[in-house]
Amino acid sequence: MKSIVILSGGMDSTTLLCDMVSKGYEIKALSFNYGQKHKKELEYAKKTCTELKIEHKIIDLTNITSLLSNSSLINPDVKVPEGHYAAENMKSTVVPNRNMIMLAIAIGYAENEKYDNVAIANHAGDHTIYPDCRDEFIQALSLAGYLGTFNKIKLYAPYTNITKTDIAEIGVKLGIDYDRLTWSCYKGGEEPCGKCGTCVERNEALSGAPKRI
Amino acid sequence: MKSIVILSGGMDSTTLLCDMVSKGYEIKALSFNYGQKHKKELEYAKKTCTELKIEHKIIDLTNITSLLSNSSLINPDVKVPEGHYAAENMKSTVVPNRNMIMLAIAIGYAENEKYDNVAIANHAGDHTIYPDCRDEFIQALSLAGYLGTFNKIKLYAPYTNITKTDIAEIGVKLGIDYDRLTWSCYKGGEEPCGKCGTCVERNEALSGAPKRI
Repeated sequence: MKSIVILSGGMDSTTLLCDMVSKGYEIKALSFNYGQKHKKELEYAKKTCTELKIEHKIIDLTNITSLLSNSSLINPDVKVPEGHYAAENMKSTVVPNRNMIMLAIAIGYAENEKYDNVAIANHAGDHTIYPDCRDEFIQALSLAGYLGTFNKIKLYAPYTNITKTDIAEIGVKLGIDYDRLTWSCYKGGEEPCGKCGTCVERNEALSGAPKRI
Repeated sequence: MKSIVILSGGMDSTTLLCDMVSKGYEIKALSFNYGQKHKKELEYAKKTCTELKIEHKIIDLTNITSLLSNSSLINPDVKVPEGHYAAENMKSTVVPNRNMIMLAIAIGYAENEKYDNVAIANHAGDHTIYPDCRDEFIQALSLAGYLGTFNKIKLYAPYTNITKTDIAEIGVKLGIDYDRLTWSCYKGGEEPCGKCGTCVERNEALSGAPKRI
């Protein structure tokens, strides 16, 4: 099975990549610079692919950043909120329709390369805030990809209904060194801030905190 | 009703734009440079929007062109085929997943601007060759946009089941000067070649040829 894997450089997609490598998938990885403040995650994506000898492209989408500018992940005038990942104030971190944009490009790439599917590491912890991480969205978009391509490209989103803690467990079993190979903090500073939603969620998951979902 | 209209600069999307203006929609138009050989269509899109005083952005997507490079509309080593638009050899003109990519960006833009929908001028003549112009694709992607955004952005594709001849009839009633305001030829030369699929189809439609579908 041949798959284009969307790789942010964070915990979830890095785990999915390693998980699929261990299962024998033939993989090309795709990362996106959409103007995120934490674009240093892309260096981690690159490092992982270099070590795993996986073909990796980083696509510069900053030409569309101005169209999606209300998100605090992009807009320099809007502060990245602090608190729990699933809290209401985290909505400002949503980049409008980001997942569909990345998946659409990856599906086009899969069609061009005659690959079978596109993999994405959305998970249950994303569901509260991010509508484009929910199962019904993934299913509708997978159908659109299947109908819109000659090669009937589908989505592969095996973590949709498990939590980040479950993902961390998979990663630990695979021996992933999360500190060295992944970056989460939305602020993208020198060190992780420990206070933004994704820092809080990462720390919960890695400490094996009780599942919230 | 507020709508983002995808405008190529060809007959179909220019007609849709004028049609929606006449119906009172509040519109922003979006065009894409994805490395197409006939990028001169974008000058026509710009001219139309200037005359109609519609806000218009041309998005440079040439960063993703290499991912979609097998299409004859993009690849300098693959000739644009000649013949009828619906003939089998026209398949080389398909740009992998192009419509989903453009629609995904437009849906993100609509979400950012708190607009209601995204309009696209796919039509029945496209169905034979282009899978991402068919009704079932449009419906699946519209559902994905609805589910993936807070503003429940849908697609508006009113020409999906009518022919280009029908579209030309609408445009003639609206008084559109197609020669001055639109460009179709896939080869993008000084003058339309008259032989590529979209030239043949345009000439049929404008001469009121019998409907083929």
